[in-house]
Amino acid sequence: MERLNSGIIGLDEKIQGGFVKGSVNLVTGKTGTGKTAFCASFLRAGAQKNEPGIYVTTEEPKEDIKEDIKSMFNWNIDETEFLVLEPVIPIDFDREEEMGRILKIYVFDLYSKIEEIVKKTHAKRLVIDSATIIEMFIKDDYLRRVALMKLTNDLKKLGVTTIVTGTVPEGTDLLSISGIIEFFVDSVIKLEFLPVAEEFKRTLTIRKMRRTDHSIYIHPFEITKDGLKIIEIK
Amino acid sequence: MERLNSGIIGLDEKIQGGFVKGSVNLVTGKTGTGKTAFCASFLRAGAQKNEPGIYVTTEEPKEDIKEDIKSMFNWNIDETEFLVLEPVIPIDFDREEEMGRILKIYVFDLYSKIEEIVKKTHAKRLVIDSATIIEMFIKDDYLRRVALMKLTNDLKKLGVTTIVTGTVPEGTDLLSISGIIEFFVDSVIKLEFLPVAEEFKRTLTIRKMRRTDHSIYIHPFEITKDGLKIIEIK
Amino acid sequence: MERLNSGIIGLDEKIQGGFVKGSVNLVTGKTGTGKTAFCASFLRAGAQKNEPGIYVTTEEPKEDIKEDIKSMFNWNIDETEFLVLEPVIPIDFDREEEMGRILKIYVFDLYSKIEEIVKKTHAKRLVIDSATIIEMFIKDDYLRRVALMKLTNDLKKLGVTTIVTGTVPEGTDLLSISGIIEFFVDSVIKLEFLPVAEEFKRTLTIRKMRRTDHSIYIHPFEITKDGLKIIEIK
Amino acid sequence: MERLNSGIIGLDEKIQGGFVKGSVNLVTGKTGTGKTAFCASFLRAGAQKNEPGIYVTTEEPKEDIKEDIKSMFNWNIDETEFLVLEPVIPIDFDREEEMGRILKIYVFDLYSKIEEIVKKTHAKRLVIDSATIIEMFIKDDYLRRVALMKLTNDLKKLGVTTIVTGTVPEGTDLLSISGIIEFFVDSVIKLEFLPVAEEFKRTLTIRKMRRTDHSIYIHPFEITKDGLKIIEIK
Amino acid sequence: MERLNSGIIGLDEKIQGGFVKGSVNLVTGKTGTGKTAFCASFLRAGAQKNEPGIYVTTEEPKEDIKEDIKSMFNWNIDETEFLVLEPVIPIDFDREEEMGRILKIYVFDLYSKIEEIVKKTHAKRLVIDSATIIEMFIKDDYLRRVALMKLTNDLKKLGVTTIVTGTVPEGTDLLSISGIIEFFVDSVIKLEFLPVAEEFKRTLTIRKMRRTDHSIYIHPFEITKDGLKIIEIK
Amino acid sequence: MERLNSGIIGLDEKIQGGFVKGSVNLVTGKTGTGKTAFCASFLRAGAQKNEPGIYVTTEEPKEDIKEDIKSMFNWNIDETEFLVLEPVIPIDFDREEEMGRILKIYVFDLYSKIEEIVKKTHAKRLVIDSATIIEMFIKDDYLRRVALMKLTNDLKKLGVTTIVTGTVPEGTDLLSISGIIEFFVDSVIKLEFLPVAEEFKRTLTIRKMRRTDHSIYIHPFEITKDGLKIIEIK
Repeated sequence: MERLNSGIIGLDEKIQGGFVKGSVNLVTGKTGTGKTAFCASFLRAGAQKNEPGIYVTTEEPKEDIKEDIKSMFNWNIDETEFLVLEPVIPIDFDREEEMGRILKIYVFDLYSKIEEIVKKTHAKRLVIDSATIIEMFIKDDYLRRVALMKLTNDLKKLGVTTIVTGTVPEGTDLLSISGIIEFFVDSVIKLEFLPVAEEFKRTLTIRKMRRTDHSIYIHPFEITKDGLKIIEIK
Repeated sequence: MERLNSGIIGLDEKIQGGFVKGSVNLVTGKTGTGKTAFCASFLRAGAQKNEPGIYVTTEEPKEDIKEDIKSMFNWNIDETEFLVLEPVIPIDFDREEEMGRILKIYVFDLYSKIEEIVKKTHAKRLVIDSATIIEMFIKDDYLRRVALMKLTNDLKKLGVTTIVTGTVPEGTDLLSISGIIEFFVDSVIKLEFLPVAEEFKRTLTIRKMRRTDHSIYIHPFEITKDGLKIIEIK
Repeated sequence: MERLNSGIIGLDEKIQGGFVKGSVNLVTGKTGTGKTAFCASFLRAGAQKNEPGIYVTTEEPKEDIKEDIKSMFNWNIDETEFLVLEPVIPIDFDREEEMGRILKIYVFDLYSKIEEIVKKTHAKRLVIDSATIIEMFIKDDYLRRVALMKLTNDLKKLGVTTIVTGTVPEGTDLLSISGIIEFFVDSVIKLEFLPVAEEFKRTLTIRKMRRTDHSIYIHPFEITKDGLKIIEIK
Repeated sequence: MERLNSGIIGLDEKIQGGFVKGSVNLVTGKTGTGKTAFCASFLRAGAQKNEPGIYVTTEEPKEDIKEDIKSMFNWNIDETEFLVLEPVIPIDFDREEEMGRILKIYVFDLYSKIEEIVKKTHAKRLVIDSATIIEMFIKDDYLRRVALMKLTNDLKKLGVTTIVTGTVPEGTDLLSISGIIEFFVDSVIKLEFLPVAEEFKRTLTIRKMRRTDHSIYIHPFEITKDGLKIIEIK
Repeated sequence: MERLNSGIIGLDEKIQGGFVKGSVNLVTGKTGTGKTAFCASFLRAGAQKNEPGIYVTTEEPKEDIKEDIKSMFNWNIDETEFLVLEPVIPIDFDREEEMGRILKIYVFDLYSKIEEIVKKTHAKRLVIDSATIIEMFIKDDYLRRVALMKLTNDLKKLGVTTIVTGTVPEGTDLLSISGIIEFFVDSVIKLEFLPVAEEFKRTLTIRKMRRTDHSIYIHPFEITKDGLKIIEIK
Repeated sequence: MERLNSGIIGLDEKIQGGFVKGSVNLVTGKTGTGKTAFCASFLRAGAQKNEPGIYVTTEEPKEDIKEDIKSMFNWNIDETEFLVLEPVIPIDFDREEEMGRILKIYVFDLYSKIEEIVKKTHAKRLVIDSATIIEMFIKDDYLRRVALMKLTNDLKKLGVTTIVTGTVPEGTDLLSISGIIEFFVDSVIKLEFLPVAEEFKRTLTIRKMRRTDHSIYIHPFEITKDGLKIIEIK
C-alpha cells in the first residue's frame, strides 16, 4: 500500500509509514490545538519531495496563513497553490433558494475548483482548512450528511491525499461541529490542549485509520521550528 | 436452536455458539471502534462455510470497503454480493412529499432490493452498514420508530442472519443515533475504544441477546489479521 | 388486601406478598435489562394458578415473544391470549387529523380491545409490553399526560392486575421516555444492567409501591430457567 | 404568629410550631418519595383538631387516594371533602382558543371551585395534589408564570393553609416541572429517596419557609402507621 | 467615592464602605437563599439614616412582603414606598402586538413610574424584587438584552442606589434566568444555600463590584433578627 | 515581527514581547473576571508611548467606563477616543428586513465608523468591549460566522492592534457566546475567577497566539493600582 509521509516528526512510524495515498483524513481539535501547524507540516513534507500541494482556506485570509506558517517554521509556502473559498453573504433569505445555492457553492463548485487546480498543478497533497463552514451553512441534517459524504467520496476518487480540518466545539467531546464528517473520512486524528496541574499539555490521538494498524496511545507533542514533533515516552 | 458462528475469535463460546439463525443483530460503537472489521469477520466466516453473504453499504463506496477488508485480513470479499444504497440529493424540499419518498426509498424499496438479492444468491448472512442514514433521514420520531420496527421485523422473516451497524454519537452513552433501533433487534453488541491511562483500549460488551444465555463481561479485544479477536483474561 | 404473586423468585416477600390486585405496575429499564423475562415470569405464575393472562405486544411480533419466552424458561405461553397493537404507518400528515386518530387508536381503541378480551377470557393478569409507543406517538405534553392518565385509570377499574413495561432511554436516569407514566401507576420497579469493574450486574429496585410497605434495597438478580430470581445477600 | 401543626412527627419543632396560618406550601419530590403520605398526615392532623380539610386531586382517582391513605395509616379520610379536577381531553386544537380555555379551567374555574367549597365546609386545610398538570397544560412561559402567581396569591387571601405538591423530574435537581412555582409559595419542603450504598434512604429538607426560623438540616424520615416521622439524629 | 452602607452586618468593610452611590447592584440566588432579607436589610439601613427607600415588587403581594420583613427583623417597613408591577394577563396573543406591549410595560412604563416616585419621595435607595419577570416576559434574546441594558443604564442616571434581585435557576450555575443582566450591573452578589454533610450552609460571594477593591472570599452568613450577618472566620 | 506591549505586568515576557502588531486578540471570561481592567491596561500602555487608542463600548455608558478605569488605576483615559455603539431598539419585527439591518448596523456601519476614527486619530490600539452584542443580535449560525469573520478580517487589514472582549456564559466552558469568534482571532486569552477552598482566585491562560511561542501555564494574577499583574510562581 502506497503511503505519503505526514511531515509530523515521529508520526509516520506510528501509522505504518504515513497517510494512505488518496485517502481523506480529518485532523480535528479545539481552537489553538495546532491544526494549522499540522497542515503546514504536511504540505512542507510534500514540497521537500516535489509533491505539489494545495491549501484551501475557508476562514483566514491567505496572507495570514502564509505569515503564520512562515513565522512558525521559517518556511516559505509560496510554491503551494492557494484556493480561497470566500463565504458569500446571503442576499436572499428564501429557504428554498438558499438550499439550491448551498449545494452549488459548497458541494459542486468547491469540488470543481479543487479538481481543476489539482489537474493543473499535478498536486499530490491537499489541505482543506476547515470543513466547518460547510457543516455550518447546511442546516438540514440529512442534506449535510449527503453533502459531506459526496465531497469526501469525490475527493477519494481524485487521487490526491487530503487533510481536512475539523472543529471540536468548546465544552464538548465531539469530533466535529456536525458530528458527521468523522464517519466518511479514512482517518481521524484528534489534537488536544489540556490543563494538567498548572500547565496545558498538547496531545495527539489517532482515533481511527482505515487500512492501517495504528498506534492507540495518547501522544504528547510540541510545536517546534521543524513542525509538530511527537514526544517519545521511554 | 440453530446458530451461525460469528467469525469473531472467542465470541461464539460466550453466546452459546453464535448468532441465532434468522436474527437481526446490532453492532454499535463510535467511529473507529471496529464495526466494519466485525462485519467482515462475520461475512468471511460465512464464506468459509459456503454461506453466501450480502453487504449493504449506505455510507462508504463499495471499492473502499473491499480494499479496507482486503488490507485488514488479506481476504478477498469478491464472492460477497454488494448492494449500494445511494442517498438521493433532494430536489424537492416540500415536507409532505418528502415523507412519502422517505418511506418508499428507505423502507419499502430497500427491503425489496434486499429480498430480491437474498433470493437470487441464497444468502445466509446479511450486513447493513449502517442503519444510521435511515435513522437520520426520517425526522419524525414516531415514523422513524415505525420504519425501523417494520424493517427489523421484515428482515426477521427473511431467514437470513443479519448484522446492522449503528452509531454511538460522540460525547454520549447512547446505543444509536435515534435511540430506538436497539429495542427491535435481537441482540446488541457494543464496541468501545476508551482511554485508559496513556492508551486506548478496545472492548466488546453484549448488552442483550434474546434466546441466549450470554456473557455479561466487558471483553477487551484486538483487531488481528484473522479478524477481531477477544483477549481472554485468565 | 388481596395480592397476586409476582412469579419473581424472592420478590413477593419484599412487597408484602405480591402485587396489589387490580393495580397497574410499571416495570422499567433500558434495553436488555430483563423486562420481557419479568413479564413472562408474572404470566407463568398466573398460568400455574389458573389465572388467565393477556400479553399486549406493541413492538415485537407475537411469534418472537413466544419463542423468546420458550427458550428462556422452557415454558409454553400458548394458553396466554395475545393482542398485537400494530402501529399504523401514517398516510395523512395533517397535524389536526393526526391528533384525533391518536386518541382513537392509542387511547380509546386500545382500551376497548383490552376490555373485550379481558371479559372474554376472564383474565386476571395483563401485560402491556410496552407503553413506549403510546408515549412516542403523542407529541403534545399535555395530551400525552391526559392519555396515559386515562389509560392507567381505566385499567385500574378493569379488575385485572397489570404490568406495563417502560423504557429508560440510554444515557439518562429517567423512568420512562415521557417522564410521566411513573406518576399514574401504583408501583415502579426499575431493572438495571450496570458495569461493575469488568462485569455487568443486574439489579432490581422498587421505586414506589402504593399500599405496600416495600423493600428499599437495591437487589441483585439473575435470569434463570425458573424466571427472574433475586439473589439474597446474607 | 398563628401556626397549624403539620401532622409530621418531629417536624413542627423544626419550623417554629407548624405552617404559618394562611400560607401556601410546596411539598415536592420525585415519584415515590412520600408526597401523598405527607398530605394525608397534614389533613389527618386537622381532622383530629376539628379543622376541616379539602383534598383537590388532579391525577389519581378519588377512590384510589382514599384507599392509599387508609392502607398507609389505617385512617378513614371520609370526613375530608374531595374535589376532582378532571383534565379535559382537548377537542379543538386551535392555539388561540386553547389559551382562553386554559386560563378559564386551570386558573379561574379551579380557584372558584376551591373558594366555594372552602366557604361551604369552613375548611382550614387544603391540599392540591398536584400542581403539575397546571404547569404542563400552560405552555407559554410567561402565561404559566402569571397563572401560578395568581393562583398562589388568591389562595393566600382565602385564609386556609395550603399544601401544593410538585414534581421533581427524574434526572434533574429542579424543584418543580416548571421551575417557577417555588418562587411564589411561602415554603418549599423537598422529599428525596436516594440510593446510599445498597439501600435507598428517605430525607426531608426545608428549602425555604417565610416568616420562620427553620431547620437547615437534611432530615432522614420514615413512613410509619402514624404518618411521616422524622428520625432524630443524636 | 461616595458609598451607602449595605445594612448587612460585616459586609461594608469588605466592599470599601458600601455600595457605590448611584450604582445598580444584582443580588442573586436560588429560592430560599435570603434575597428578600438582603433587600430589607438594605432599606432598613436607609430608614435609620433618613434615606427614603422604594420597594418595587413584581412577584409577591405588598402585604406579604411587609409581613415577611416584620417577622424577620421586627421592623416596620411602612415608611418605605411600595410600587407593585402587576403582570398583565394577556388577552391578545398576536406576536407582533405583544412585542410592542412588552417594551411599553416592562421597559418604558416601569422606568417612568420609578422615576416619578423617586422624585416625589426623594428616595435614595431602590429595590427591584425581582427582575426575573422582565427577563421571562421578553422572549427574544436581543430584545431582552437591549431592554435590560436600557433599564440598567436609565437607573444609573437616576441617582438612587439600586438593588435588583435575580434568580439562579435550580440545577444550574447561572447568575440569572437570562444570563445577561449580570453584565450591565455594577456589582453581583451571589447568595447560596448549599448542602454540607447533613446540613445546609448559607454563603455570600461578591462576584464583581466595579470601582471597588472587594473581598474575594466565600463568606458564610446567617439571617438574624438584626438582618443578614456575615460570620467572620478567624 | 513587530509587537506592542500589553500593559499587563509580567505578560509580555510570556508572549515574546507583546501582541503582534495589527493582530486581533480575544480577551474572554465570565462577568467580573477583569476584562475591562485588561483593556484599560492595554490602552494606558499605549498612552504612555504616544500610541493613540480607541475604546468602542457596546454595553456600558462611556462615562461609567471612564469612571471605572479612573477608580481602578487612577488613570485619566480622556485622551482615548470613545465610540459608542448604541443598540437600536427594533421597531419593525419583520424577519427579512431585520437581517438586512443587522448586516448594516453591526457589520458594515460599525466597521466604517472604526475605520474613520482610526484614520482621524492615527490610533495604534483599539478595544471593542464587547463583541457579545454582535454575536447575540445575529441569530443565524452561518450569517453570524460570516459577519464575525468579515469584521475580524477587516480589522486585521486596518493596521491597528485590537483587543475584542468576549463573554464566557456562566455554567459553561465556552470561549464566547457564539462559540465562533475564537476561530478568527489571532489570539485567545481566557480570564477566570475560580473558587479554591474558601476563596476565589484570578487566573489568566493563553489559549492560542498565532505567530507566537506563548506560555502554556495557568497564571494567577491580581488587579493592582498599576493594572493587571501576573503573579510569578517561583
